Amino acid sequence: MIKESLIAEFEKIMGKENVLTSKEALRAYSYDGTTNWVREPDVVVFPTTASEVAAVVKIANAERIPVTPRGGGTNLSGGSVPWLGGIVLCMTKMDKILKIDKENLSATVEPGVVLQDLTLRLAKEGLFFPPDPQSFLGATMGGIISENAGGPACVKYGVTKQYVLGIEVVLASGDIVSLGGRTLKNVVGYDLLHIFISAEGTLGVITKAELKLNPIPPAKKTIVVVYDDVAKAGEGVFRVLENGVVPDKIELIDNWVINRIEEMMPIGLPKEADAVLLFEADGVPEAVEKEAEKIVEITKKYGATDVKIAKDADEANKYWLARKAGFAAVFGKAKTVLAEDVTVPRGRIPDLIRKCKELAKKYDVEVTVLGHAGDGNLHPSILTDVGNKEHYARAMKAMDGIIEGAVELGGVLSGEHGIGLEKQKFFNKVTDPVVVDMMKGVKALLDPGNIMNPGKIWN
Amino acid sequence: MIKESLIAEFEKIMGKENVLTSKEALRAYSYDGTTNWVREPDVVVFPTTASEVAAVVKIANAERIPVTPRGGGTNLSGGSVPWLGGIVLCMTKMDKILKIDKENLSATVEPGVVLQDLTLRLAKEGLFFPPDPQSFLGATMGGIISENAGGPACVKYGVTKQYVLGIEVVLASGDIVSLGGRTLKNVVGYDLLHIFISAEGTLGVITKAELKLNPIPPAKKTIVVVYDDVAKAGEGVFRVLENGVVPDKIELIDNWVINRIEEMMPIGLPKEADAVLLFEADGVPEAVEKEAEKIVEITKKYGATDVKIAKDADEANKYWLARKAGFAAVFGKAKTVLAEDVTVPRGRIPDLIRKCKELAKKYDVEVTVLGHAGDGNLHPSILTDVGNKEHYARAMKAMDGIIEGAVELGGVLSGEHGIGLEKQKFFNKVTDPVVVDMMKGVKALLDPGNIMNPGKIWN
Repeated sequence: MIKESLIAEFEKIMGKENVLTSKEALRAYSYDGTTNWVREPDVVVFPTTASEVAAVVKIANAERIPVTPRGGGTNLSGGSVPWLGGIVLCMTKMDKILKIDKENLSATVEPGVVLQDLTLRLAKEGLFFPPDPQSFLGATMGGIISENAGGPACVKYGVTKQYVLGIEVVLASGDIVSLGGRTLKNVVGYDLLHIFISAEGTLGVITKAELKLNPIPPAKKTIVVVYDDVAKAGEGVFRVLENGVVPDKIELIDNWVINRIEEMMPIGLPKEADAVLLFEADGVPEAVEKEAEKIVEITKKYGATDVKIAKDADEANKYWLARKAGFAAVFGKAKTVLAEDVTVPRGRIPDLIRKCKELAKKYDVEVTVLGHAGDGNLHPSILTDVGNKEHYARAMKAMDGIIEGAVELGGVLSGEHGIGLEKQKFFNKVTDPVVVDMMKGVKALLDPGNIMNPGKIWN
Repeated sequence: MIKESLIAEFEKIMGKENVLTSKEALRAYSYDGTTNWVREPDVVVFPTTASEVAAVVKIANAERIPVTPRGGGTNLSGGSVPWLGGIVLCMTKMDKILKIDKENLSATVEPGVVLQDLTLRLAKEGLFFPPDPQSFLGATMGGIISENAGGPACVKYGVTKQYVLGIEVVLASGDIVSLGGRTLKNVVGYDLLHIFISAEGTLGVITKAELKLNPIPPAKKTIVVVYDDVAKAGEGVFRVLENGVVPDKIELIDNWVINRIEEMMPIGLPKEADAVLLFEADGVPEAVEKEAEKIVEITKKYGATDVKIAKDADEANKYWLARKAGFAAVFGKAKTVLAEDVTVPRGRIPDLIRKCKELAKKYDVEVTVLGHAGDGNLHPSILTDVGNKEHYARAMKAMDGIIEGAVELGGVLSGEHGIGLEKQKFFNKVTDPVVVDMMKGVKALLDPGNIMNPGKIWN
């Protein structure tokens, strides 16, 4: 429990209205997008400037109180849950888009800006921030950077890491420093910027970011490709890429998810298909036209049973809306969903899918597969019920098998969700102890008191 | 001086033929592409496996002998000069392309692979590694990664950092670890990979790398744009970009360099022009056609006096050959050249060019400007003579002014050459002491004996 006198200090720093200790507030900030990791903080504070953040962190450091920074709380690995209690530093009131620099194709934002708000604002300037985590309606930029968020469009555009030129960060010491800068090229000593991207808030609090932007491509086209064998869909992905076509998105939806989508919002996906690949090509109209044709040609050649180019933006939007609803569909159909985030080299997608099917059979559990096949990042989800011990135990075994399988195929256990609380067991299993020691050394260097989001990534 | 007994140990590890101590050998490995930083090592060794590297580093660490890793030695900041003597670890015999994975669009290479060799080999598969430092004929992948090399094509494709999925590295302890992986998405603990990219060999020795590749775009077009005012050329750059056209290259050549090129290899560049911008658009033919037209339209609108699309690949190659010769032209025309590597947000290029002109006038020295204008990375070069003290002092003042000017404009002092020895003075001046301490902390953590390329980045 936090001392009353400290609460009063926080109120002095940020104003009474920005310091919450009511039961309801503590409950509201006790979980994230996983919903199965819950721990209440002792206080929730809403700083509005970097100096306020620094003032809070300084006190926390002196008193050795855990500080968990968070934004929208949409993350999927327990990363923003205040696992050891203490202070939740909620950044949602630092939500200003400070500058859009069209000449430099960059923007300066505060960490509490919601991605969707940024997207809409940038669209007015003909610009966009390419990473597109499916939590875009709630996810905030600080979290997107801290978890190195991905999304469908990473096939062509890469992940968040590639779109952060610089950040301002409050260290555990209370120092406010700038890392990186505003330019594309920057080789000035060690790249400390990138350690903070994907550190899940365990090294400091991001209070400002300089983002790299792209001009919005003038045209897009969506192609729906149907398969009678999900492993063939996996092959379709790399056949298109190795033939020199790089669509911005290649998403995979399996039979189970297709049927749930058709139940929720019938859009004419073939219910008997084993899998569907959704491609999107973007660029100047002539190039998009040509890429769409090539996608049709290549996927037909490699085993697609049906291929269709969406006739207009309305039809295309329907498919993408369905894809977005896919994850919700999975979560709505079981009491507990173990949602994986494994990523493999693209050539190994068919092997990973086969592995998932084998494990489903072996442990007699339902494993659905959807995700960003274009970059090898799949989200196999196991439907179970944490209340049914026997079933849950089998589900956990299947999950272990999927993660081990992905690593054996040259992949990693998390592509875009991070380790947080959920993947710690696997993190220790698959990470070289020398590398873990290096990471812990960095943590001890930058946060010797272990106050920044403690309990995450490792124990 | 290194003990004779250690030389014998090295010979046992790598074979006599891979351990050089002759006067000529030590001289040959005493400098880099700058030529004005010279220091002979005590021994030059050529490991052929990561285990051999580890064995050498272990001995060096126990004996506290400096180890300077190097490849082609083409770098431009003194980075590969063995500044405190000791061992030069020359990686050029680890020069195998281990794997090209077309399905995953990736390649596994040893650090001694010359970029040009990789480019030629990848071309057979229709693939390429986008970063294109102009030292590509000699630069090796280990150095390219350690300096986070750039080049002209970074406008569209980004820098080396964006194309390294993973590395194997020998730490100062002699441990061999793998960082990153083989997938595009990877959020598994702290991103230690990126600290090694651009660490200039001060944290460990890269012994293998997994590179991300792109399919070669089927078409290219070169556009030559002439200006009567170099600052207008600077504006041309960001006008094109803010209009949604992203060419893969936008290079700037000023009047002085144009005239040196026309002396060496007349290709019809207008000698009276204050500057020329060379654009290259790449992609599918239809898109390239359209982008070229848009570049013509936009640059004409914003002050270009003449614009010309190269009629075929031969003509285009001529221009790019001239651009490549540009730097050589500068170096051939003065006893000493202070070649800068400043980078500013693209909208500030005209200001930076104006600043260079002002400083040239103020200190009465010749400052030529060429470089990668598309990403704000210019190489203003000051022609001087280190033997002429009075002139050299003025040149140094102009250089100080250029770097300070770039930083004031929101830029950085090095875009792609690194700090090495050459930029240390400025590094300390422009870098927040708290950030320098963080970097030094990382160095102490990973190389407590300070044996890895000591004397670089800072003193």
